[in-house]
Amino acid sequence: MEERTEIASLGEFGLIDHLTKNIELQHASTILGVGDDAAVIDHFGKQTVITTDLLLEGVHFDLMYTPLKHLGYKAVAVNLSDVYAMNATPTHITMSIGISNRFSVEALNEFYEGVYFACEKYGVDLVGGDTTSSAKGFVISVTAIGEVAPNKFVKRSTAQKGDLICVSGDLGGAYLGLTLMEREKRIFQENPQIQPDLENESYIVGRLLKPEPRKDIIAFFEEKEIVPTAMMDVSDGISSEVLHICKQSNLGAVIHEEKLPISDESRRAAYKFGLDPTVCALNGGEDYELIFTLKQEDYDKIVLNEEISVIGYTTDPEEGIKLYTKGGNRFNITAQGWNAFQQS
Amino acid sequence: MEERTEIASLGEFGLIDHLTKNIELQHASTILGVGDDAAVIDHFGKQTVITTDLLLEGVHFDLMYTPLKHLGYKAVAVNLSDVYAMNATPTHITMSIGISNRFSVEALNEFYEGVYFACEKYGVDLVGGDTTSSAKGFVISVTAIGEVAPNKFVKRSTAQKGDLICVSGDLGGAYLGLTLMEREKRIFQENPQIQPDLENESYIVGRLLKPEPRKDIIAFFEEKEIVPTAMMDVSDGISSEVLHICKQSNLGAVIHEEKLPISDESRRAAYKFGLDPTVCALNGGEDYELIFTLKQEDYDKIVLNEEISVIGYTTDPEEGIKLYTKGGNRFNITAQGWNAFQQS
Repeated sequence: MEERTEIASLGEFGLIDHLTKNIELQHASTILGVGDDAAVIDHFGKQTVITTDLLLEGVHFDLMYTPLKHLGYKAVAVNLSDVYAMNATPTHITMSIGISNRFSVEALNEFYEGVYFACEKYGVDLVGGDTTSSAKGFVISVTAIGEVAPNKFVKRSTAQKGDLICVSGDLGGAYLGLTLMEREKRIFQENPQIQPDLENESYIVGRLLKPEPRKDIIAFFEEKEIVPTAMMDVSDGISSEVLHICKQSNLGAVIHEEKLPISDESRRAAYKFGLDPTVCALNGGEDYELIFTLKQEDYDKIVLNEEISVIGYTTDPEEGIKLYTKGGNRFNITAQGWNAFQQS
Repeated sequence: MEERTEIASLGEFGLIDHLTKNIELQHASTILGVGDDAAVIDHFGKQTVITTDLLLEGVHFDLMYTPLKHLGYKAVAVNLSDVYAMNATPTHITMSIGISNRFSVEALNEFYEGVYFACEKYGVDLVGGDTTSSAKGFVISVTAIGEVAPNKFVKRSTAQKGDLICVSGDLGGAYLGLTLMEREKRIFQENPQIQPDLENESYIVGRLLKPEPRKDIIAFFEEKEIVPTAMMDVSDGISSEVLHICKQSNLGAVIHEEKLPISDESRRAAYKFGLDPTVCALNGGEDYELIFTLKQEDYDKIVLNEEISVIGYTTDPEEGIKLYTKGGNRFNITAQGWNAFQQS
């Protein structure tokens, strides 16, 4: 009988490791390949960063509650986030879409309005793409290109023991926005007369539908001459991201629950939904914040920036990856991040 | 009532024109944006070429007769073809896939075997990608990056009146391979006991399943110090490609039917299927040959290359785009190329 290994048995990261373990790089110009937020290519002394994302209707977005303009904006934003996560500046994108005939030209105009709005806001040029029909569902593929001064790019694997673990903005909001939208969708499906009222939840809804990549943090690093020792963006949830950085840097970590940045709006929404705000902050994905490690001596440079929180520090690998709770308990942090293969 | 324009009413190229007409490029480094085989970015004096393709199951390929290894190879090959069509050398690719749980890890291994084989053969590095689940169908998105000496890239819009129109290799084979496979599929579906016999048609089947981008032609240009005046790859059929070059260069053209390169295998298959080999050569897509225009004085440099055929010449735009047949008739060439939106 033919061998059959289920993809779910490997998980997304296991699958990527499996498929890419035999890559042999042929170009001396390939400075960094698969396994980080983006790849880095040497171009005649300066360095080019490249990253790509595939977004599928029904897996990554639900058009029932995602306005097309927001979707176009977000498709660009999440790719730029990967470029910033390399400490690089995005300059160009390509955008490919697959669409069924259920979409009109007007609907696509809306989508591209969002795309162009994001391009303008973040100063990138849309330089190419591919437009094709799909049998079913909306397919979006974005590739972003950026530039970085030679060897100023920041990987995931280079954190050092004793570094501060920092995160930008606040956490868990996008997950709570998703929880709200899914709840309103169910209510609407059961009773189409009830119109959703999202007015009081605009913060968490905005976190879900219109994430803003942290260009400002990269600019702040440059201004203050900070180079993080490691960095990535928060797409799957910081539990998952801390594990990535620690695994790739061969370190342990301590995260302090009371240091996790959670907005008042997110905290309120979590209580309303009967959820623990800490769990939302640790395991909720799609915040598109930056998580990074810093040498301790850089602490003075960031302490006044209200957009940056120090949430813990790195340790020896034998000490594991721990959450110290407000109540004085210590838990192992495990990857609860979003796994696209779990539900398929 | 809300306005609704059907996408099919614009067609693929009309849609792309519509969606991209308002692009405002912000970077001085963007040398060439949407509208050619690839974009060109200036990187500190040298130039980077970037192109992307989205391939969807049921639209671009049928897994019933496409081995996964071939599919992986072809997904890379068709993108490299776009880079060569800029007179550039591909160096890096990213590959994103969306897969449903109907695929096993072994199936993906096969797919990636083809991907890596193409990478090795054409000397490119796979540097990134995204792997996600899809609700239904196999989704493939490839972005290729290449490099070109400053201003040596070749656009579609720069052909001059009186140039020779040339094409590499031979035409129509991939379309005939597709016709054969679709016929065998129907026979198999009606009677699963009948196993397809493709032995005698390996040439046209190979043209469909395993196209080879024309790296050799670009190398030949360099060796002979030829820079075509315009160039693109043959993905939709040369009728469509001649129209692109002529429209973008504001020219007319004459194509001589008897000069169209058609292999013996393709001619034989066409007669067997009751098709006109000329129509297959003009309108069949996916040959991934190069079509290019040359100054007449370059004729001596190419005349001995059996992989290059001169099929016609460019004229004033008022003279239209004509096919001169063997029988002495003159027809207008119209775009019969493959349109992904026609059948959706």
